[in-house]
Amino acid sequence: MAGDRAASWQSIRDTIMLRIRDRTYPPGELIPNEADIATEFGCARATVNRALRDLAEAGFLDRRRKAGTRVIEAPQRKATLDIPQIRREVEARGQAYGYRLLARATGPAPEDVRARLRLPEVEETLYLESLHLADGAPHMFERRWVVLRTVPAIAAADLAAVNPNEWLVREAPYTHGGMEFHAEPAGAAAAALGCSPTDPVLVMERQTWLHEAPITYAREHFAQSYRLCLGL
Amino acid sequence: MAGDRAASWQSIRDTIMLRIRDRTYPPGELIPNEADIATEFGCARATVNRALRDLAEAGFLDRRRKAGTRVIEAPQRKATLDIPQIRREVEARGQAYGYRLLARATGPAPEDVRARLRLPEVEETLYLESLHLADGAPHMFERRWVVLRTVPAIAAADLAAVNPNEWLVREAPYTHGGMEFHAEPAGAAAAALGCSPTDPVLVMERQTWLHEAPITYAREHFAQSYRLCLGL
Repeated sequence: MAGDRAASWQSIRDTIMLRIRDRTYPPGELIPNEADIATEFGCARATVNRALRDLAEAGFLDRRRKAGTRVIEAPQRKATLDIPQIRREVEARGQAYGYRLLARATGPAPEDVRARLRLPEVEETLYLESLHLADGAPHMFERRWVVLRTVPAIAAADLAAVNPNEWLVREAPYTHGGMEFHAEPAGAAAAALGCSPTDPVLVMERQTWLHEAPITYAREHFAQSYRLCLGL
Repeated sequence: MAGDRAASWQSIRDTIMLRIRDRTYPPGELIPNEADIATEFGCARATVNRALRDLAEAGFLDRRRKAGTRVIEAPQRKATLDIPQIRREVEARGQAYGYRLLARATGPAPEDVRARLRLPEVEETLYLESLHLADGAPHMFERRWVVLRTVPAIAAADLAAVNPNEWLVREAPYTHGGMEFHAEPAGAAAAALGCSPTDPVLVMERQTWLHEAPITYAREHFAQSYRLCLGL
């Protein structure tokens, strides 16, 4: 493995990760010491140390000063998901992205939305209905409520020109939030999506917060051909 | 912010992350230098350095030796998902987990499964049908194909006692794979799930590989009440 150029700590980390995954380094067992790994890769011990520290922080290795480094048994595997950004997603498939604002109104949110965002009954929200297109065909239908107290600037935004997601990503930073996926009949979203109300569609619900202040709750119905993909 | 005890690099990283998210440190702008942050937190510069390096590697900061550290504009936000482990998921909700093996057979896989795993027509697979229960009620119905060439030991496994997921997690390490979610009518899974064939359900497809060797492809239909949840 020792080559003409010193390996980066990332490439050493990735190789060790593959060896953990394919059990060249089995669960519960000691892996070679830093000096031996450094010799194998033809690099400095500090580089190996950086790679092992990263794997230890990610929960794959247990490092003990005297006892050496062991592979942790049965770590919880994680998958990472790029948070769907509708335009990027459509364009990444080589399709033209389109967007239409279908409705815009101001008023209190319905009870289920208030419960999600823990809003009082009188709280003013901006309600938006929008349709996102891929090569002119319906891709996603979105209903969204934005809390005006948290994001007053959206009242003046031209949301026929810029979609609410992109406006919020740029203008309304959030500290935390959550997403949920489930399946349901297209129902009231059927007309916009051009399918039957009984057709099953994937629904994403998303809400975000800026510290204690609720920002927005969105309910997105995806066209039937949509697949949510994650790498392992 | 300087307290009685020196802050850990992780707590400094988390505080800086919140400041990026709520735009105390705005996109494109320089953040305070290491020495100033170290003074604020009452810790060593090396600790701040470790925190900033982590945020730079995660794609939130751009560090330049002379020019200082800037917040990267519009980073792609990522969500992390614990890969669903059905027993843990059910038990985490305070419900009793149950499992039944419904069918087991050996033979070639159908064409769509062969295409997924890039298998030749003659490849022998183990086919498994299983039902996973929460407090005795159907929670998930799974159809799975395991490539016997890659995982010969599964032929002798007692899969009525240990569910295939748990057996594979323990015995069949993988290097990579993918997951996909979509909505469809329950169809042939309806009888096992105790719903109507036209009821919409969430379907997860998952496949894993050990380097070039295909391990398994699974198609899981979840009960209608199921929600896939991700933190932001």
